[in-house]
Amino acid sequence: MTTAYADLLAFTRDTQALGQVAGRLGWDQETMMPRGAAPQRGEEMAAMESVLHARRIDPRVADWLAAINDAELDAVGQAQMREIRRSFARTSKVPAALAARLAKLTSEAQGIWAEARAADDFKSFAPTLAEVIMLKREEGQALAAGGDIYDAMLDDYEPGATGAGLEAMFGAMRPVLSELRAAVREAEAPAKLEGNFDEGAQMKLTRLLAKTFGYDMSHGRVDKAVHPFSSGSGLDVRITTRTNPADPFNCFYSTIHEVGHACYEQNIDRAYLLTPLGGGVSMGVHESQSRIYENQIGRSRAFTGWLLGQMKDAFGDFGIKDEDAFYGAVNRVNDGYIRTEADELQYNLHVLMRFDLERALMTGDLQVSDLEAAWNDRFEADFGYAVDKPSNGVLQDVHWSVGLFGYFPTYSLGNVYAGCLNEAMRKAVPDLDAALSKGDTSPATDWLGANVQTHGGLYTPREVIEQASGQEPTEGPLLTYLKEKFSDIYGL
Amino acid sequence: MTTAYADLLAFTRDTQALGQVAGRLGWDQETMMPRGAAPQRGEEMAAMESVLHARRIDPRVADWLAAINDAELDAVGQAQMREIRRSFARTSKVPAALAARLAKLTSEAQGIWAEARAADDFKSFAPTLAEVIMLKREEGQALAAGGDIYDAMLDDYEPGATGAGLEAMFGAMRPVLSELRAAVREAEAPAKLEGNFDEGAQMKLTRLLAKTFGYDMSHGRVDKAVHPFSSGSGLDVRITTRTNPADPFNCFYSTIHEVGHACYEQNIDRAYLLTPLGGGVSMGVHESQSRIYENQIGRSRAFTGWLLGQMKDAFGDFGIKDEDAFYGAVNRVNDGYIRTEADELQYNLHVLMRFDLERALMTGDLQVSDLEAAWNDRFEADFGYAVDKPSNGVLQDVHWSVGLFGYFPTYSLGNVYAGCLNEAMRKAVPDLDAALSKGDTSPATDWLGANVQTHGGLYTPREVIEQASGQEPTEGPLLTYLKEKFSDIYGL
Repeated sequence: MTTAYADLLAFTRDTQALGQVAGRLGWDQETMMPRGAAPQRGEEMAAMESVLHARRIDPRVADWLAAINDAELDAVGQAQMREIRRSFARTSKVPAALAARLAKLTSEAQGIWAEARAADDFKSFAPTLAEVIMLKREEGQALAAGGDIYDAMLDDYEPGATGAGLEAMFGAMRPVLSELRAAVREAEAPAKLEGNFDEGAQMKLTRLLAKTFGYDMSHGRVDKAVHPFSSGSGLDVRITTRTNPADPFNCFYSTIHEVGHACYEQNIDRAYLLTPLGGGVSMGVHESQSRIYENQIGRSRAFTGWLLGQMKDAFGDFGIKDEDAFYGAVNRVNDGYIRTEADELQYNLHVLMRFDLERALMTGDLQVSDLEAAWNDRFEADFGYAVDKPSNGVLQDVHWSVGLFGYFPTYSLGNVYAGCLNEAMRKAVPDLDAALSKGDTSPATDWLGANVQTHGGLYTPREVIEQASGQEPTEGPLLTYLKEKFSDIYGL
Repeated sequence: MTTAYADLLAFTRDTQALGQVAGRLGWDQETMMPRGAAPQRGEEMAAMESVLHARRIDPRVADWLAAINDAELDAVGQAQMREIRRSFARTSKVPAALAARLAKLTSEAQGIWAEARAADDFKSFAPTLAEVIMLKREEGQALAAGGDIYDAMLDDYEPGATGAGLEAMFGAMRPVLSELRAAVREAEAPAKLEGNFDEGAQMKLTRLLAKTFGYDMSHGRVDKAVHPFSSGSGLDVRITTRTNPADPFNCFYSTIHEVGHACYEQNIDRAYLLTPLGGGVSMGVHESQSRIYENQIGRSRAFTGWLLGQMKDAFGDFGIKDEDAFYGAVNRVNDGYIRTEADELQYNLHVLMRFDLERALMTGDLQVSDLEAAWNDRFEADFGYAVDKPSNGVLQDVHWSVGLFGYFPTYSLGNVYAGCLNEAMRKAVPDLDAALSKGDTSPATDWLGANVQTHGGLYTPREVIEQASGQEPTEGPLLTYLKEKFSDIYGL
C-alpha cells in the first residue's frame, strides 16, 4: 500500500505540473500571445486538455485507489486522498461521451454568447443556453446519483455546500442588504473621484500596492489584460490588472483583489507544492481572501488614509484632499447594472439573484424562454430601476455559457467567509488600523497567511473558516460590518 | 491503410502541438518567468518531456507504420512518412535506459559546465564531459548500427550529411579563409563604431528592422533575453534580442538573424501546420536563412546605406557620416576569441575547429584530457594568437555539455547554403540592391520565401538548396562572395 500511495502521489504530481502548464498557456493567451496565433493555440490547448483527460481516467488510478487504505495514512495523507478520491469519483460518474459533448458545446457557446451580447440579443443565445442547461442537468443527474442536482454542481466549486443551506443564508441577507441599500440611496452621497489619471502612474502605484499586500514578485508578475485575473499556483502565481484613465480605483482594487487570490496560492505550505493540497481549497475560500484584501483591508478607513497620500504623490492634486472625503469616494454606492462593477453593499444582491435564477433553471422551475423576463423582473425588484439592455442584464456574465452552474454563489459565500475572518482578525490584531494607516498590511496578511492560506487543501472549506474564525460561518458578521461601514459613511 | 495514415497524422499533430507548448515554456523561462519559479518550472518541463517521450514510443505508432504503404501516398504524404519514420527509427534504436541516463547527465552537465566556465577551470568539467562523450558514443553506436558514429549523430541535425563530405568541404574552405583573413589583418581597418546608444531607441529600431525583413508581428513578438533566440513554429514564432549601449550592431544583427529563423517558420506552407513538415527541414537550412538575412542582405553595402539613415534618425550624430565608412564599420574584422561574436570572415574558422575536434572526440582519436591543449594549439594555428583563458577557449560553448555533437558543422553548412542561395537570388533579382538601398528587403525575402521557406520539410535539405540555387551545394559561392566583399572593404 505504501508503494501504491507513493505511485499515486507521483502520478498526481505530474498531472498537477501539467495542469500548471495548461494554466500558463491561458495566462499567455491573455497577456502575451500574438493575436494571429489563436487557431494554433486552440489546438495546443486541446492537446493539453486531452493529455490531462487521459490522466484523469487512467486505469492505474482506480487500481491505486483500491490498494490504499486511507485510515493508515497521516492527516496530510488522508487529506490528499480525500481530494484525489473526490476528483476521481467525479470523473468516473460522468460518461465520457457526455463530457466530450459538454466540452464541445460550451466552447462554441462562449462565442455565441459573446456575439449575442455584442448584438444585445438574448434570443440568438437562448437555444444554445437551453442546450447547455440540458447537458448540465444530465451531468448533474450523473453526479448526484439520485440526490440533488444543484448540490452536485456546487460540489465542483464548494465541497460541502448545499442549495438549501445557501438559500437560508442568502434569504437572510437579501432583506438586510435591500434595506441598507434603500437607506443609503436616500442619504447624501460622498463626492465621486473625477479626473484624468495617467495610466503609467497607475501601473506603478498598482505594483506598489501588490507588494504592500505581500505579493511576492520573485514568484509572480503583474501585467495588463482585458480582464483582471490570477493564474498559477505555488512558485509561479501571476496576476493581471487593467487601467482606465478615468477610474484608477478600478485598477487598484482589481489588483488588490487578484493579489488576495495570488497570495493564497503563494502562501500555501510548500510541502504541498504540486499536490492536490497545493491549491486553494474552494472557490468560496479563495474569494474570501481576494475580498478581505480588497474590501475589509483595502477599502478600510485606515488604509484609504494611506492610499490618499500615495495617490497625491502619483497624480498630484485631484480635487479630493481630506481622508474622510477620500474614504467616501472609495466606498461610494453607485447605481449600475453590472455585477463586477458593483460596490461592497450591492454586490451580493447581484449574486443572490444569479443563485435563485440558476437554481430554478436546474430544477426546471424556470425555462430559458422565460429567463430574460425573470431576470428583468428580479432586477427591478431588487434595484428599483429597469434593465436597459440585455448586455446590462441577462447577457452580462460569461458563466452560464461555459456551463458554470453552482459557481455564482461562491462569490457571496466568499464575502460571508471574509466577514467571519475579518471579525476574528480584528480581535486577534486589535491595533491593525494603526498599521494600515501607515500602509503596513502585514499584521492582517500574516494573520490570514497563518490561519487560512498556509493550509491549502488540508481542511475542508468549512473547517478552515471555522478554525480561523472560531465560529461556524454565518452571514451575521458580514451584515454587521456592512451596516456599520455604510451607516458611518452615509451618516445613517 | 487510409485510416492508419489519418490516425497517425492526427496523433502526430497532437504531439506537434504539445511540442509547441513545451517550446513556449522555454520562451517564457527566458523572457517572462519570475526568477523564483525555476524549481517548479523544472518539474513542469520534466512532466511535458515525459508526455512527449511516451508519445514517441507509443506502441500504436509501430502498428500504424507497419500498416502504411508509403508508395500509395502522394508526394506530401511520402514526405510526412519520411519524417515520421526517421524520428521513430531514431527513438527505437536507442535503449530507453540509455536515453534516460543521457537526459539526466546532460541536464546536470550543463550546470557543471556553467560553473567551470565561471571559474575558468576546464579540469572541473573534464570528467563530466568524458562521461557525456562515453554515453554519446554508446548512443551513436546504437544509432549507427555498424556504420559511422559521427554520421549517425549528424543525422539528428542535418539528414544526409556525412563526416567525410563535410571534411572535404571544410578542408577546402580553411586555407582560403585563412589566407583572406591574413590579408585583411595586414590591410588598414575601417573605423569602429563607438559611442553610447540609447537602449530604448535600439529596441525601437530593432522592431522596425524585424518588420523590414518581413517578420509578421501578428504571429510573433520581440522581447529581450540574455541570449537572442527564435522559438515556435507556424502561427506563433517569437524572437528575442538584447541591447548593449556600446554595441547597437549586436542588437540589430542578432534581431535580423533571429528574424531569418523566424520567417522560415512563419512562411512554411500553412497546409503543413502542426505536421512533421511544418518546421524547418534541418539545422543547416535553418541557419542558411538566418545567415543570408543577417549577412548577404543585412550587411550588404546597399542595405547598410539605408540603415545608416535609420541610425542617424534614432541616435543623432554618432561620428560615422558616410555610407562607405558605415559599411566598413558594420563589416569590420576584429580579433577575438568567441565564435558567436565573430564576423562573417572568421566565423567559419571557429566552426571548422569545433568540427575537427568533436569528430576526433567521437572516433576516440582525441581524449578529453588532451582537449584543452588541442583546442589551444588549433586556435593559435588558425588565429595567430593564444587563448588567454578557458572561458574564451574550450569552455565558451554550451553545446558539448548538453550532448550536441554533430550540431556545430551545421552552422558552417548554413553559411555554405546561404552562399549558394545568394548567388541564385542575385541572378533572379538583378535589381535587388536598388530595393535594399531604400530599406525594401521584399524582393530578397519573397524569393527566399517562395524558393526555400514555403517547402518546410517537404524536400530533403540538399534537395531544397539544389532546387532553389540550381546547383549542388558547394563552398565555392560563399568563398567567392567573401573574397569579393572583404577585398572591396579592405582594398585588397
